[in-house]
Amino acid sequence: MDYVSIRYVTKKPKLKNPILIEGLPGIGNVGKLAVEHLIDSTKSIKFAELYSKDFPPQVFINTDGTIELVKNEFYYWNAKKKNQRDLVLLTGDYQGLSSHGQYELVEKILDVAEECGVKEMFTLGGYGLGHEIKDPKVLCATTDKYLVKTMKKHGAIFKKNEPGGGIVGASGLILGLGKLRGLQGTCLMGETPGYLVDPKSAKAVLKILMEITNVEINLSALEKKAKEIEHIAHQLKEMENLSKEKSEELKYIG
Amino acid sequence: MDYVSIRYVTKKPKLKNPILIEGLPGIGNVGKLAVEHLIDSTKSIKFAELYSKDFPPQVFINTDGTIELVKNEFYYWNAKKKNQRDLVLLTGDYQGLSSHGQYELVEKILDVAEECGVKEMFTLGGYGLGHEIKDPKVLCATTDKYLVKTMKKHGAIFKKNEPGGGIVGASGLILGLGKLRGLQGTCLMGETPGYLVDPKSAKAVLKILMEITNVEINLSALEKKAKEIEHIAHQLKEMENLSKEKSEELKYIG
Amino acid sequence: MDYVSIRYVTKKPKLKNPILIEGLPGIGNVGKLAVEHLIDSTKSIKFAELYSKDFPPQVFINTDGTIELVKNEFYYWNAKKKNQRDLVLLTGDYQGLSSHGQYELVEKILDVAEECGVKEMFTLGGYGLGHEIKDPKVLCATTDKYLVKTMKKHGAIFKKNEPGGGIVGASGLILGLGKLRGLQGTCLMGETPGYLVDPKSAKAVLKILMEITNVEINLSALEKKAKEIEHIAHQLKEMENLSKEKSEELKYIG
Amino acid sequence: MDYVSIRYVTKKPKLKNPILIEGLPGIGNVGKLAVEHLIDSTKSIKFAELYSKDFPPQVFINTDGTIELVKNEFYYWNAKKKNQRDLVLLTGDYQGLSSHGQYELVEKILDVAEECGVKEMFTLGGYGLGHEIKDPKVLCATTDKYLVKTMKKHGAIFKKNEPGGGIVGASGLILGLGKLRGLQGTCLMGETPGYLVDPKSAKAVLKILMEITNVEINLSALEKKAKEIEHIAHQLKEMENLSKEKSEELKYIG
Repeated sequence: MDYVSIRYVTKKPKLKNPILIEGLPGIGNVGKLAVEHLIDSTKSIKFAELYSKDFPPQVFINTDGTIELVKNEFYYWNAKKKNQRDLVLLTGDYQGLSSHGQYELVEKILDVAEECGVKEMFTLGGYGLGHEIKDPKVLCATTDKYLVKTMKKHGAIFKKNEPGGGIVGASGLILGLGKLRGLQGTCLMGETPGYLVDPKSAKAVLKILMEITNVEINLSALEKKAKEIEHIAHQLKEMENLSKEKSEELKYIG
Repeated sequence: MDYVSIRYVTKKPKLKNPILIEGLPGIGNVGKLAVEHLIDSTKSIKFAELYSKDFPPQVFINTDGTIELVKNEFYYWNAKKKNQRDLVLLTGDYQGLSSHGQYELVEKILDVAEECGVKEMFTLGGYGLGHEIKDPKVLCATTDKYLVKTMKKHGAIFKKNEPGGGIVGASGLILGLGKLRGLQGTCLMGETPGYLVDPKSAKAVLKILMEITNVEINLSALEKKAKEIEHIAHQLKEMENLSKEKSEELKYIG
Repeated sequence: MDYVSIRYVTKKPKLKNPILIEGLPGIGNVGKLAVEHLIDSTKSIKFAELYSKDFPPQVFINTDGTIELVKNEFYYWNAKKKNQRDLVLLTGDYQGLSSHGQYELVEKILDVAEECGVKEMFTLGGYGLGHEIKDPKVLCATTDKYLVKTMKKHGAIFKKNEPGGGIVGASGLILGLGKLRGLQGTCLMGETPGYLVDPKSAKAVLKILMEITNVEINLSALEKKAKEIEHIAHQLKEMENLSKEKSEELKYIG
Repeated sequence: MDYVSIRYVTKKPKLKNPILIEGLPGIGNVGKLAVEHLIDSTKSIKFAELYSKDFPPQVFINTDGTIELVKNEFYYWNAKKKNQRDLVLLTGDYQGLSSHGQYELVEKILDVAEECGVKEMFTLGGYGLGHEIKDPKVLCATTDKYLVKTMKKHGAIFKKNEPGGGIVGASGLILGLGKLRGLQGTCLMGETPGYLVDPKSAKAVLKILMEITNVEINLSALEKKAKEIEHIAHQLKEMENLSKEKSEELKYIG
């Protein structure tokens, strides 16, 4: 096995001018949630698995008791309508652990994408704000100036100097290394508190992606998850408030 | 020397459809204890040593004053009865230090195993619970669905979503990377508090392994060690209780 | 992409006996500030970009919303007068993250420099003192004894056993590895408190560099920045004093 | 430059059955002090420098203002009498930073040693006890059983299970990897508190080495250094006692 290696689980799919959409684990798991939902909703088909010696030395256990080596996965989807394009979808268990491993991982991802004929890419992620957000906006950054205009039309937001630290991780690197290969790309970052997994932010990202790609995505499952998480967040907050009250009571008595 | 390198100390053994059994250091040292006991009890013969540049730069000192570079070791055992199979046994001083090193180590282990004709593997380890256990059960995970059934028959336990974090380290990776090569395998994890080395848990693992392999293992040495450790654990607990009592006395006086 | 890779953005410049001047991020960002100012002031032209798998996996976002993979950059400048020499200028977003990565980075920098015909080098940096400095001096170290004399004439300072820990990072390594290739070089280190970016120290370094190279540099932009930073430093100090006074008042009352 | 690279500064020396003696930085700097003293005392000649990408990216500054890339250095000494043997001596600024780097470093050291005809080696180091020692003993470990006898005759000590953690670093690895190449070797570890550099312990090690090699070494410079360090240790202790007394006085008053 190479440092990063790819294993096709079906024949290489024949795709026409496809778009790559990436969502790996990150802040609020926004990107991973969004792409996983997109895969489920569109019934995309897995065609390749990617393994890396820079992933943790770990297997996960399926519900039937069998193991799965940690990996990334490529799916594809064929356009159903004239105004749609074929998709290559990437999600997975991990990003690379080290800087070097991240570069190697992304170079292999781009190799696979280019073999599929990809020339345009969307990378999805979260933008952690550290506070609650009623209506998460979707920040954006692109490889090319003309894409800024397009994305603004679709409702994505550009804020000067945000994110201040740039984009760290696969979502940034895919655009950065892709640009050096002449690929076009856009990063969509859903605002998120960043404390918990955030399906609400993932939904906001997918809404814009639907606009751009004309792919219909049923968002109800994601909305259900969002309500569950809101419920959990609410409970956590109540517990916190209770314990605050108690400690104040104690101060009063003492 | 390569990054990971193998040195045969005897001719390559001729084995018939052998099973690999791995037990490297880990939680409660369960796997290492079990395989070392198995080697002693069956008088298995060492045939190869494995060195890695990802092991610590360290030598151990033998009781006669000579040094030994840290390493892993392969042993073999020839079946004595018709219902038994040949064994390849692996134990050692360390697992790889880095993720990358763990992958390289396991790839080399699998190379050696396949050269020996191995197609089925057992990896042994501990499952840390963080509390005392009267009668440690043996959790299980396998590469293939049909093995789940077999292992249940032999008394191994499958619990949904356990271990929650999957299996980290060589015991998991041997199955994960082995599965990609078409090898079958099973991980047996003895429940253990995880504080001290745990011969009781190792015994539980070996009991199931005896059932599966029909190899007779005299467990008395392991039982003796288990009593010693229980004694030490008991003493540590008493000391802890004493110091608790004292501090409470002091509070009373003060 | 190699571990470290170079991409020419113009044709390789034709230079006559050029001097390399390096300023990468470091203590007080003195070196980076100085070289960036030198590039702006001389209107030097970018001819190459350097990428490394040991840089963080990160893109920065330009003010127009487009992304830039983190990198180092080479510029050149053609001498305008007889007493000047052509320049190759190096600055960038990062130094290597790991020791190994730093060596690889500097080897590639030296490859590019030698291809440009460089035989003499200046590396610029800060020398952190941990306290305020009215008039920062410029410490010096060189690859060759004859250069010590020259630099003293131009006002650079040599102090026995300073910096005590030698020079860590690209500014030191370029001289160290360059010396093994037969290149001559000098490190100019501006004294700096090291708390904040330090344009005053960068100015001190550039003044000496002007003396040595006869390149005229308009230092007014740097002086303006220095005043801004002094203002910020002053404000920070006042806030600190205020909070000290308050806590003393409280002690007095309590 | 390779990951580890060697640069001969003289022609390869012609040596007859030489012994390698290694002393790199470590606990109490015992090994480095001993070998540096041996080099000075015997006026050994430097013949090679060793650089590694796993050393820190650092240059040291000589007293004349010139820089030196961090490195290891090989010296040789030709036997003067019939009962002496030629020597290859190794010291340096650093050991490798990472496990992998240590293995690569030692492999290269052994390559150079074997090219010089080395078949027997001594590695020198400290054995940290964490308390003061009046008369430091020299612990020993060897590659071969017959050497244990020899070393005991010369006054080296073997203690069962000591050092308990084996020998970590170049002194251990040179023996461990050397043994795999069929080289014989002995590690001499001077007992040391381990707080400060310890010339007294280095002297104890050299005394035994003189016995073994019949090389005469003038130990007076080392004795002088030992007295200086003792003086410093004494002063540090007094300061500590003073501050203890003061804090007790304060308690009494308060």
